[in-house]
Amino acid sequence: MASAKRSPATRRVRYQVACSLDGYIAGPSGEFDWIIPEPEFNFDELYAQFDTLLMGRKTYEAVRSMPGVFGDKHVIVASRTLRQTDPSDVEVVGEDLEQRIVDLKKSPGSDIWLFGGGELFAQLLAWGLVDTVEPAIVPILLGGGLPLLPAPAAQYPLTLERHRAYSSGMIVLEYAVRSPAEAE
Amino acid sequence: MASAKRSPATRRVRYQVACSLDGYIAGPSGEFDWIIPEPEFNFDELYAQFDTLLMGRKTYEAVRSMPGVFGDKHVIVASRTLRQTDPSDVEVVGEDLEQRIVDLKKSPGSDIWLFGGGELFAQLLAWGLVDTVEPAIVPILLGGGLPLLPAPAAQYPLTLERHRAYSSGMIVLEYAVRSPAEAE
Repeated sequence: MASAKRSPATRRVRYQVACSLDGYIAGPSGEFDWIIPEPEFNFDELYAQFDTLLMGRKTYEAVRSMPGVFGDKHVIVASRTLRQTDPSDVEVVGEDLEQRIVDLKKSPGSDIWLFGGGELFAQLLAWGLVDTVEPAIVPILLGGGLPLLPAPAAQYPLTLERHRAYSSGMIVLEYAVRSPAEAE
Repeated sequence: MASAKRSPATRRVRYQVACSLDGYIAGPSGEFDWIIPEPEFNFDELYAQFDTLLMGRKTYEAVRSMPGVFGDKHVIVASRTLRQTDPSDVEVVGEDLEQRIVDLKKSPGSDIWLFGGGELFAQLLAWGLVDTVEPAIVPILLGGGLPLLPAPAAQYPLTLERHRAYSSGMIVLEYAVRSPAEAE
């Protein structure tokens, strides 16, 4: 069972997303067609590190129809408008999101994949609940779209922990999020 | 004398900038204070690869007071409002910018450093006059500021040519710009 690297008792919330060099996670109309397949990238290995997928409503609605995208993972959708019963195979969390994530991180299990989008990332950053940011930078300038982190947001210093370049030109960067107080 | 890598007869225009992970080259008020010093980075070696610095008026006005920032380089400021005589140590180019850069790339010399900002980058991209994008990604989320490439812009596929991580957590990515027609 995967566990958090620094503190074995805490599951990490990890924002793992494909991102253009100019900082977009989707095109202006939510397009994903610019994300080039990378045969070297071991998606299964990544996928196995998580047991929970956490996402905003818009991301959920954009990806829910992709075959097998959720696999056997527990899916949590942050939404104040989506009804829990529709559908019943995901957990919808509204007002109590912060406490739900705090509890989730303390409970046993693997890491939690923050699947997107940028607005949920910004909210979780503000609550101090994001452990890592792991953009897979696709070699393209999109020129517009849905941002990795919508402005305005606070400044968050990061620590580069790992990086790996792939033959397609994709480069995965792994950062730990430092609290603003940790900044020099 | 440094010369272009692929075509020895052509000087390259290279967009070398410090950039936050969320895609900003300066803070909301033009701040540079988030750019952490990187002792390992050989600035002199980089600087020696260029004989010309090309920048927009706002970048020029932001950096002109930094001691020695222009060294012995030829400085070209793209501006329709700045007067050539004020000051006289830089070349101001207005309406004729595209032809000036075309001519400059054909003339003998070292590479041309596109010093910023994002608006000039977007214009030169649209003219097909940018050879490389070389962001030095600083480990921080700025949450807002002056973008690497202001939206809306066209899509430009890139080729990752090199990357190097530094001990501060900065990682320099070097991409060649492919024309949209080169995209698969």
